[in-house]
Amino acid sequence: MIIALAGGVGGAKLANGLAQLCDPADLLIAINIGDDFSHLGLHISPDLDSVMYRLAGLNDTERGWGLANESWRFMEALQRLGGPDWFNLGDQDLATHIERTRLLNSGVALSEATTHLSRALGIRHHIAPVSDDPVRTIVKTAGDDLPFQDYFVRLQCAPSVSGFAFEGADQAELLPDLRDALSDSRLAAIVICPSNPYVSIEPMLAIPALRRILENRSVPCVAVSPIIGGDTVKGPAAKMMRELGAAPSSTAVAAYYEGLIDGLVIDAVDEKEATKIKAMGVAPFVTTTLMKSDADERALADAVLSFAAGLCK
Amino acid sequence: MIIALAGGVGGAKLANGLAQLCDPADLLIAINIGDDFSHLGLHISPDLDSVMYRLAGLNDTERGWGLANESWRFMEALQRLGGPDWFNLGDQDLATHIERTRLLNSGVALSEATTHLSRALGIRHHIAPVSDDPVRTIVKTAGDDLPFQDYFVRLQCAPSVSGFAFEGADQAELLPDLRDALSDSRLAAIVICPSNPYVSIEPMLAIPALRRILENRSVPCVAVSPIIGGDTVKGPAAKMMRELGAAPSSTAVAAYYEGLIDGLVIDAVDEKEATKIKAMGVAPFVTTTLMKSDADERALADAVLSFAAGLCK
Repeated sequence: MIIALAGGVGGAKLANGLAQLCDPADLLIAINIGDDFSHLGLHISPDLDSVMYRLAGLNDTERGWGLANESWRFMEALQRLGGPDWFNLGDQDLATHIERTRLLNSGVALSEATTHLSRALGIRHHIAPVSDDPVRTIVKTAGDDLPFQDYFVRLQCAPSVSGFAFEGADQAELLPDLRDALSDSRLAAIVICPSNPYVSIEPMLAIPALRRILENRSVPCVAVSPIIGGDTVKGPAAKMMRELGAAPSSTAVAAYYEGLIDGLVIDAVDEKEATKIKAMGVAPFVTTTLMKSDADERALADAVLSFAAGLCK
Repeated sequence: MIIALAGGVGGAKLANGLAQLCDPADLLIAINIGDDFSHLGLHISPDLDSVMYRLAGLNDTERGWGLANESWRFMEALQRLGGPDWFNLGDQDLATHIERTRLLNSGVALSEATTHLSRALGIRHHIAPVSDDPVRTIVKTAGDDLPFQDYFVRLQCAPSVSGFAFEGADQAELLPDLRDALSDSRLAAIVICPSNPYVSIEPMLAIPALRRILENRSVPCVAVSPIIGGDTVKGPAAKMMRELGAAPSSTAVAAYYEGLIDGLVIDAVDEKEATKIKAMGVAPFVTTTLMKSDADERALADAVLSFAAGLCK
């Protein structure tokens, strides 16, 4: 059995690769909820949706987020009414938010709502929020402390970042299914997907129980670096690294996850970093990490699983 | 100054006719809120929307409700997710409900939200809910007591009606703007639009202050019969009349409003009822009441205003 920690588009891609290889009973995809927020009265879970839409084969590949074949009549009408229009919500995507919010308001847990929505979209694999309790990422900047979506969407990642806080993480209970899977004798490896370490993975690691389990893991934990040639494929990870004083590199990713991972998968263009990473006590594995197709996702997932299988904890 | 009481599609049409004739400062359109309900976490006000969309020239004339040039991508996606799909919400229409709900949840009164939305759609006339307090129509049937939209949309008006209740009406405070307009020395007439007497007008009359003011009015009150040739143009008014033991007719409408109206506008096809209506102490006025165009709406409004102007209270 494999546990994957995922958030964002890169995470959704590798999760989809793993889903192509693993039986539904043998994979748990635990997803970041630090991006979740309340907007227009709706509970929006961007990372859950990215993974869900990707696994359902419904994601938009050009735009990089949301649903393919989307329309924007709602947003146009909302603009006409002078409503808050800084966060784009597609007409189809809106159904996900409205139905999820309806389920949550009726007393259903986020994990249960996620399973319900996933099943409705034909997904057989287990997609789960890392916790049913709220965790909210706050981006600390030279100016204000910003709720994540204010930073990410409204301000388009423009402010310089000085740190992060994860509201609720201290009190959040690790999702029981995830906690059980982490101690399951069938567990073979934990995979940290190529997601933003600061705002996709850290909000999960900020839940004390998860960090403690990863620190004391008895199976290999392998991360895939989201940095390729000093930059990210998408998102502000490289910009954040620079602002926090680190040159964007897979080496910096290895350092960030120190004590939590046994191996790091890096891209072939960063092969020269392998020695440095190895010296940090993290096994490097060099391959192509850029995922442009189902086949790429599957190939990377295959490489990650083989790599993890050969590692000792 | 004119006050119009309106609900539903017929009400929206005559309201639009009046708006074509009256300056914005000289017309208050007070609207039924008995149809309002909460669905998918949204506050939906069908009658407010019908009038608003009509006055903005955005209403769909073929379907008879909602917005023209509407699309249904949200509903399709909601169906795919297995969400409650018995109440159709167009992609553009959804923006009205979401923005209204957002305003209400931020502490704005329904009347203020209505003004805000109306202005955004370019409406200069004053459209207002009859109260900022909730009034909810319950349809009593042989079986269950049904919330209005369950009866009207989910069950397509199939159950036989035995009566009505208007939850909250007893406690509802008449909208201050309406109360003030009703005692304004400039008030020339009150117009009850050709709306369903039981479920569009009665939920307003069930507010004790409004009924009391109408009973003690010092200006003419004129209704337009929604019955033409023993049937309605749209909606269940005639069916309800039959189920409640009255033959659907303008005479029955006159009887229903007894003590509240001084005149009743009836269609030319019902001219023979004029004598009976007159005998009830209600002045009849015969004209064409079917409204198929802007011009029809304007012509009927013009006839209603002239008729009212010639009546004494």
